[in-house]
Amino acid sequence: MVTRLSHLFVRTLREDPAGAEVTSHKLLIRAGYIRPQAAGIFAWLPLGLRVKAKIEKIVREEMEAAGAQEVHFPALMPREAYEATGRWEEYGDLLFRLQDRKGGDYLLAPTHEEAFTLLVKDLYSSYKDLPLTIYQIQDKYRDEARPRAGLLRGREFTMKDAYSFDYTDAGLDASYQAQRDAYERIFQRLGMEYVIVQADAGAMGGSRSEEFLHPTPIGEDTFVRSAGGYAANVEAYTTPAIAAVAFDADAAPVIFDSPNTPTIDTLVSHSNAVLDGEYTAADTLKNVVLALTHLDGTRELVVVGVPGDREVDEKRAEVAFAPAEVEPASDADFEKNPLLVRGYIGPWSETGAVLGEESATGIRYLVDPRVAEGTSWITGANIDQKHAHSVVAGRDFAADGFVEVAGVRDGDEAPDGSGPVTIARGMEIGHVFQLGRKYAEALGLKVLDENGKLTTVTMGSYGIGVTRILAAIAELNSDDKGLIWPETIAPFDVHVIATGKDDVAFDLAAQLSADIEATRRDVLFDDRPKVSPGVKFGDAELLGVPTIVIVGRGAADGQVELWDRRSGERETIAASELIARLG
Amino acid sequence: MVTRLSHLFVRTLREDPAGAEVTSHKLLIRAGYIRPQAAGIFAWLPLGLRVKAKIEKIVREEMEAAGAQEVHFPALMPREAYEATGRWEEYGDLLFRLQDRKGGDYLLAPTHEEAFTLLVKDLYSSYKDLPLTIYQIQDKYRDEARPRAGLLRGREFTMKDAYSFDYTDAGLDASYQAQRDAYERIFQRLGMEYVIVQADAGAMGGSRSEEFLHPTPIGEDTFVRSAGGYAANVEAYTTPAIAAVAFDADAAPVIFDSPNTPTIDTLVSHSNAVLDGEYTAADTLKNVVLALTHLDGTRELVVVGVPGDREVDEKRAEVAFAPAEVEPASDADFEKNPLLVRGYIGPWSETGAVLGEESATGIRYLVDPRVAEGTSWITGANIDQKHAHSVVAGRDFAADGFVEVAGVRDGDEAPDGSGPVTIARGMEIGHVFQLGRKYAEALGLKVLDENGKLTTVTMGSYGIGVTRILAAIAELNSDDKGLIWPETIAPFDVHVIATGKDDVAFDLAAQLSADIEATRRDVLFDDRPKVSPGVKFGDAELLGVPTIVIVGRGAADGQVELWDRRSGERETIAASELIARLG
Repeated sequence: MVTRLSHLFVRTLREDPAGAEVTSHKLLIRAGYIRPQAAGIFAWLPLGLRVKAKIEKIVREEMEAAGAQEVHFPALMPREAYEATGRWEEYGDLLFRLQDRKGGDYLLAPTHEEAFTLLVKDLYSSYKDLPLTIYQIQDKYRDEARPRAGLLRGREFTMKDAYSFDYTDAGLDASYQAQRDAYERIFQRLGMEYVIVQADAGAMGGSRSEEFLHPTPIGEDTFVRSAGGYAANVEAYTTPAIAAVAFDADAAPVIFDSPNTPTIDTLVSHSNAVLDGEYTAADTLKNVVLALTHLDGTRELVVVGVPGDREVDEKRAEVAFAPAEVEPASDADFEKNPLLVRGYIGPWSETGAVLGEESATGIRYLVDPRVAEGTSWITGANIDQKHAHSVVAGRDFAADGFVEVAGVRDGDEAPDGSGPVTIARGMEIGHVFQLGRKYAEALGLKVLDENGKLTTVTMGSYGIGVTRILAAIAELNSDDKGLIWPETIAPFDVHVIATGKDDVAFDLAAQLSADIEATRRDVLFDDRPKVSPGVKFGDAELLGVPTIVIVGRGAADGQVELWDRRSGERETIAASELIARLG
Repeated sequence: MVTRLSHLFVRTLREDPAGAEVTSHKLLIRAGYIRPQAAGIFAWLPLGLRVKAKIEKIVREEMEAAGAQEVHFPALMPREAYEATGRWEEYGDLLFRLQDRKGGDYLLAPTHEEAFTLLVKDLYSSYKDLPLTIYQIQDKYRDEARPRAGLLRGREFTMKDAYSFDYTDAGLDASYQAQRDAYERIFQRLGMEYVIVQADAGAMGGSRSEEFLHPTPIGEDTFVRSAGGYAANVEAYTTPAIAAVAFDADAAPVIFDSPNTPTIDTLVSHSNAVLDGEYTAADTLKNVVLALTHLDGTRELVVVGVPGDREVDEKRAEVAFAPAEVEPASDADFEKNPLLVRGYIGPWSETGAVLGEESATGIRYLVDPRVAEGTSWITGANIDQKHAHSVVAGRDFAADGFVEVAGVRDGDEAPDGSGPVTIARGMEIGHVFQLGRKYAEALGLKVLDENGKLTTVTMGSYGIGVTRILAAIAELNSDDKGLIWPETIAPFDVHVIATGKDDVAFDLAAQLSADIEATRRDVLFDDRPKVSPGVKFGDAELLGVPTIVIVGRGAADGQVELWDRRSGERETIAASELIARLG
């Protein structure tokens, strides 16, 4: 049935909605695809729902082709299972929690690992039942602190989440690969550029973890890649190991006065002046005090040492210390630990090692891998207004371990030897993930193996953000006039516009609309009387149907215009040729 | 793609699940269609999801045919709009309420009148935009006190809810009729028996209201219907008006001793003994004290007078006094009101009118319409151990009004003169409803009419319980062996079973499955090796696919068995004829 624009529930807006910052957010509202209901919560209008349904159909087809079976869980879930895995607490304020009339605790699920694990435990008990991959396309909830960018970071969002169940590691690898392949096909069908990057497993636990990032300057993720094929989320990037260098065991570090040099810049200038050197920030060892809050609530101070030309990257630190929360040490922390001389902290002092293995502070000292054995540094002397030079790792101090918290830069080497990396921004549109046995262990999911022995199941988790993908595609496929949908997911295939006051044009447009619809295409027919051609053209550009047919003055002569929304090209053709031209 | 049972995520159970009382609840769990997650909250397994999707497809098709357009709202909605219409409070404990991290109040929507009203207000402003009917198929939430009967009364359920918007009453009538007609087509396509009954508008406000009830002994609704075409929910039934009867203005009521007669039975026996009469319970006027709790929290006592042969019907009383809550008066209520002599309450006493218009008690007295002017009653005398006879309505007392709270019985007359009614049980499967201007007024939805004047929009609300319908169909279509799906919504069209150890049978079954699938039918192929024919047949009966094909010993001779699940008939046919036989 041809959809008539006079009937369609839509209202296009000329002005950008207040508070909308990114293009997709502005255009999806202006073109009448979605309407905000609360911060990060949207209603879907008919146009938006059509696009969403087409994306979901592609996802479903590829899931089925990959052997995954669809199920559906409620959004409202009881607390117990999330308690058992620790996530009831771990999620913190991100979780919408509520109680029922009897005081039972519930949550709006942000993801369903626990529920799927328990469902399989409920139904299956033998290795013969495996492998199994089940999925759902479902509305999820996260109480984001700052919902923003429309659908890109909402508090309610539609996800496809799949979970695989195997009883061997090889089985998990195969299930993981099947989902990974399906994701590649989905993004290819959607015409979305993507990069598969190594991701940190994070709070979810587990081993292999890869993200599908869509490169875009508005992405919230930063990733690195090398020409040689390495790609990783910046949180997952690991610094190539640096071989120990030889050092003079007998030489000694030297303390020197360095008044008013609490920053790296001032320290470098001062050092070059008083030591007559050509030092750079990379020759200094910066020691930063971090405060970790562990899940049990305890607070721990940690000092991290990074080359002075690098900052401690907040996100990398979060991942390095997860599930503990990380923040800079407070004034109170320093007051309680007078050994940490602010601005002059170092792993070595005249009195011996102050931080690290031989230290008596009790504070862990972790260093960047570049602080390899034998490397020599200018660093704090743990005395106010004093630094030391020729402080050698492994000779003058020994850290408690390495840590990946230093910022990553263009030109850093990929850890796999595939060359220098470049940094780019990306938006996470998919995530494939080997959970391993963490959830199955926490919730007791075991099956009998071939030998009749109980074995814990190993799982994978695979997510695609349906609504986020929709927004990302809108973002990518637009110009200053509006949306430009790819044919695969456009709300309609053809947008027929009747212009003028002539019945001949409207009758021909109606006939052509029906003819096009008969070729199994979805047609939107702008049949509005008394609306100017200019307004109709503007609406067509805003709505973004890829192919537009204008039926106007030429109708009496059997002529129509074929308008390609993307290229902007318009061509007059015979109406009788239209169907053939649509291909 | 043929679905293989060896791969399908399902586990059939031989035993009824604990706590399941109704057939559909037991069978849908035993056959692996759904799994409970919490009280009244279920997960959908692949089989259940297939049936649900088919019902939703039928609903969608009929909605689109009726000109309704699909939209989609979040389940999580902010409090404000529900506050504006009073429903944030009115829903009481039925509402799941929660707060976000900033302390904002939210609810899980039990229905979306407010949201739809605001959406239309947001986008539309002219009569030219109307009529409009928009709908969604969406998961809703109600925190039922006693979730029971599986999907029939859950706390999360899928509904199709539609809302119409018009600016004239005639427009509303047309929109209402279009939805009503669509509902009839939906239930006809689903093969569901239904009765359209007049319903009380209830707390939703508004005028015309009809329910689609599916007659079933397990239904929670009681309805009446006459042979002449009257049908009403028992709460909406109204007693035909009874004409006033002539009475002797000079005669007087007589008080008589009636020790130990606090019940109607004891009163009738005693009266017949001491008055030498042939009275029945219908000659007595029973006065029941009810306590109303109004929305503002105030408590009011009301006395209702009904013929002694009828009880006060709790549900009819709820409707009669809505939105106040109704309960029997408590001991404390009686203690505070010594004029109300328990067991001997009447509207008249020697001292004059005790209840009703001329009374000084301040307690309203409402009577059944059968207590018409001129009717004479035996009733309490407001003196302990005493009743009065010949107490005439309109002469000795005057009620404050009529009230429809008396129970309805088989044989009561329909109010439209279409004859006596019979009572039956039904399950509500749909509700169509003229809301009128209540929501539009509360939320300020107005449009400019033809004359450029602002006019308040009038609305309709139309609901169908998708998951409830699924359960009702399962309930209706089952036997002691399992489910028997109608072809329109069966999870698969054909269930092919391979039996024996013979590759010939398995190969033929696989080939036939593919051949049937090629005719655009959904096929489930029981390819499980080493499973006995008895188990396979039992599973087939439990799962309830309407047509079963058994490929076993006859396979070598090209013979298969065609088994009709509903009739139980099995017939041996040539495999080569199978497709033709399926029609």
